[in-house]
Amino acid sequence: MFVLVNLKAYDCDPVAIAEAAAEVADASGERIAVAPQAARLSAVADAGVETWAQHVSPVEHGSHTGSTLAEAAADAGAVGTLLNHSERRITLANADDGLGAADRAGLDTVLCANNPAQAAAAAALGPDAVAVEPPELIGGDESVASADPAVVEESVEAVADVDDSVEVFCGAGVSTGADVAAAADLGATGVLLASGVAKADEPESVLRDLVSEI
Amino acid sequence: MFVLVNLKAYDCDPVAIAEAAAEVADASGERIAVAPQAARLSAVADAGVETWAQHVSPVEHGSHTGSTLAEAAADAGAVGTLLNHSERRITLANADDGLGAADRAGLDTVLCANNPAQAAAAAALGPDAVAVEPPELIGGDESVASADPAVVEESVEAVADVDDSVEVFCGAGVSTGADVAAAADLGATGVLLASGVAKADEPESVLRDLVSEI
Amino acid sequence: MFVLVNLKAYDCDPVAIAEAAAEVADASGERIAVAPQAARLSAVADAGVETWAQHVSPVEHGSHTGSTLAEAAADAGAVGTLLNHSERRITLANADDGLGAADRAGLDTVLCANNPAQAAAAAALGPDAVAVEPPELIGGDESVASADPAVVEESVEAVADVDDSVEVFCGAGVSTGADVAAAADLGATGVLLASGVAKADEPESVLRDLVSEI
Amino acid sequence: MFVLVNLKAYDCDPVAIAEAAAEVADASGERIAVAPQAARLSAVADAGVETWAQHVSPVEHGSHTGSTLAEAAADAGAVGTLLNHSERRITLANADDGLGAADRAGLDTVLCANNPAQAAAAAALGPDAVAVEPPELIGGDESVASADPAVVEESVEAVADVDDSVEVFCGAGVSTGADVAAAADLGATGVLLASGVAKADEPESVLRDLVSEI
Repeated sequence: MFVLVNLKAYDCDPVAIAEAAAEVADASGERIAVAPQAARLSAVADAGVETWAQHVSPVEHGSHTGSTLAEAAADAGAVGTLLNHSERRITLANADDGLGAADRAGLDTVLCANNPAQAAAAAALGPDAVAVEPPELIGGDESVASADPAVVEESVEAVADVDDSVEVFCGAGVSTGADVAAAADLGATGVLLASGVAKADEPESVLRDLVSEI
Repeated sequence: MFVLVNLKAYDCDPVAIAEAAAEVADASGERIAVAPQAARLSAVADAGVETWAQHVSPVEHGSHTGSTLAEAAADAGAVGTLLNHSERRITLANADDGLGAADRAGLDTVLCANNPAQAAAAAALGPDAVAVEPPELIGGDESVASADPAVVEESVEAVADVDDSVEVFCGAGVSTGADVAAAADLGATGVLLASGVAKADEPESVLRDLVSEI
Repeated sequence: MFVLVNLKAYDCDPVAIAEAAAEVADASGERIAVAPQAARLSAVADAGVETWAQHVSPVEHGSHTGSTLAEAAADAGAVGTLLNHSERRITLANADDGLGAADRAGLDTVLCANNPAQAAAAAALGPDAVAVEPPELIGGDESVASADPAVVEESVEAVADVDDSVEVFCGAGVSTGADVAAAADLGATGVLLASGVAKADEPESVLRDLVSEI
Repeated sequence: MFVLVNLKAYDCDPVAIAEAAAEVADASGERIAVAPQAARLSAVADAGVETWAQHVSPVEHGSHTGSTLAEAAADAGAVGTLLNHSERRITLANADDGLGAADRAGLDTVLCANNPAQAAAAAALGPDAVAVEPPELIGGDESVASADPAVVEESVEAVADVDDSVEVFCGAGVSTGADVAAAADLGATGVLLASGVAKADEPESVLRDLVSEI
């Protein structure tokens, strides 16, 4: 299981969380990554944790002010990127081009989707993984794996039908090791989470719990 | 073969084109539809031709100023809608919700895509048809079916792999009966065209030619 | 005072409301306009009421699928258009170009803003009127003129400082003749309203009340 | 005169350019800033040059994946930000909120505009400066100050009419010290440039020339 912590624009210390994640990853041998604001990618990468971007633009080098160039994210230390998060939705064409940009820059890709039909569509574009996150459960108290296990199972099935080399992650409401274990039982190979870690008083103990049942 | 004429925002007389299309459809027995600006849907429908919207919003009834409500398009006489045209790209989630809105309003749907991978993604969302139109060929002199036949064939195959009940249309550069026949030979069951009719001096003779080899 | 009724995407009968508005306008001698979905502009105009678009695109004739061409809105019977409603925000450049498009098509323009600073900015682009509508009050029970009179007064002043030929309308929560009178007292020369009429059981009596204290 | 170098998404070495800019600024005593990709802000700031963001989002801390939080830009070393560049246009409301976000984070602000009317509108929102850049001249060979001096003069006048505490910068085609001097003669107090430095074989000599006639 891959634990991917999206720090969004939360009022948190990305470096402290990165250090905690690096320590828990080392101690447990599990894969944990942290996705900070683009401006903090290098600070997070310097902390020694696997570092992801929250988004990259579908562009190549050129006249694109205010873009998030995949190559710049990679230069800052990112090794992967989310795309099409429900808080940063992009067009179908830009998802396609964003995956191309990430590939050029050597970034792994997780393409987000709201439901099984969108997960299948996302899989057809060939990302490394599809993450299914029902928007209505994001930031909530109950994990998608318990609140709506069918959405995970159906996504795993729908993605496999389209391209069985694409992994399925799930997100929304994930905050405990039991949630991670439940996601794995449903066929997910990774989890996306955010507030559960970013808003925690003690991110390190949350992270330790998250990987405890893998 | 279904001939779908997208009038875009061209400086043309939508009613005159609608009347010509109705006449050619009647005379030939072939299916021809005209997609005008939303504001002209009822005028086009009144001319007796099959009428399509160029776009509908992903919303239900409610507080959505400046939206294109699927139900309003249907009330004005539309029986189908394009979605995600390369000049009106929408997010994956909005494509999904736009198809739902169209279904609620009883509209047929053609979801546009730029290439075979996007066509497969579009098919996963369950539209009636996917239209593949390489953006670089739109408005050009050569038909997609002759300029890039592989993109049509690969789209037909990719869509069938995902959902073989979804039809495949093609567009970009279509302007003659030979183009329509070539598209049919490649497995398409419809064509999208725009400037070939909308900018023609004699739309009726272009339309007559378009259906001449079906 | 100009009473501009925005029907948004509400589940209402635009023609019935248009007929009621035409009747009340005739009987009272006051100016009332109805802004339906683009697809219903001609049906509303046919009912004999002053007809407005909810939005027009910043484009000229050309390859713009799914746009709302100002000329098409005018051809369907619109004589004015809203721009930049808080539910259909546009860029500064598109507001500028949208006003140009409306001018070319002979449409009056009301450019919307959320607060006095934005109202001043909007005025600098030269619309016929600026409408100030605090988004947090839209659809609510209390009129902007009573809930936040300062926002109206400051907008009137800020707009006059930039260009005193630009009128100021106000909106959000307007539903009675007293609200209209209060808006006029604050210096507004028009009101925007929506749900108060569109969701009313008897739109005609609401409209009659709205103009009763002008 | 303030020389603000926007690196856009160009294929350049932001750190080398930052070092060159720091050296020229030190040697000349002139104010030079460099605006890299968000992901490279800290690397550029570490080089000792004044560092600007190309864009910030209109949001506060919270659930905003893929945003460019003003506070994160500041934490990475930015002291200012562009907003509404013609390659990253934002809505009027987001320009207003983006200025608020920048203020909270302690960032100076330059709000971009295409022409004098938009410059006046931008000034009404209260940025530190407005930059006028006719999009058709961006990336071209001739400086706005010589190709279209009226647009600069009229912007200076229009901005002063709205708020004379707002400075006016100009951009598009600026590449030499003579261009900077011409801009100053027209009333601008800063210049925006991009390809002239970012694509130069020897950025340092270009920068030295740029400040040579101030």
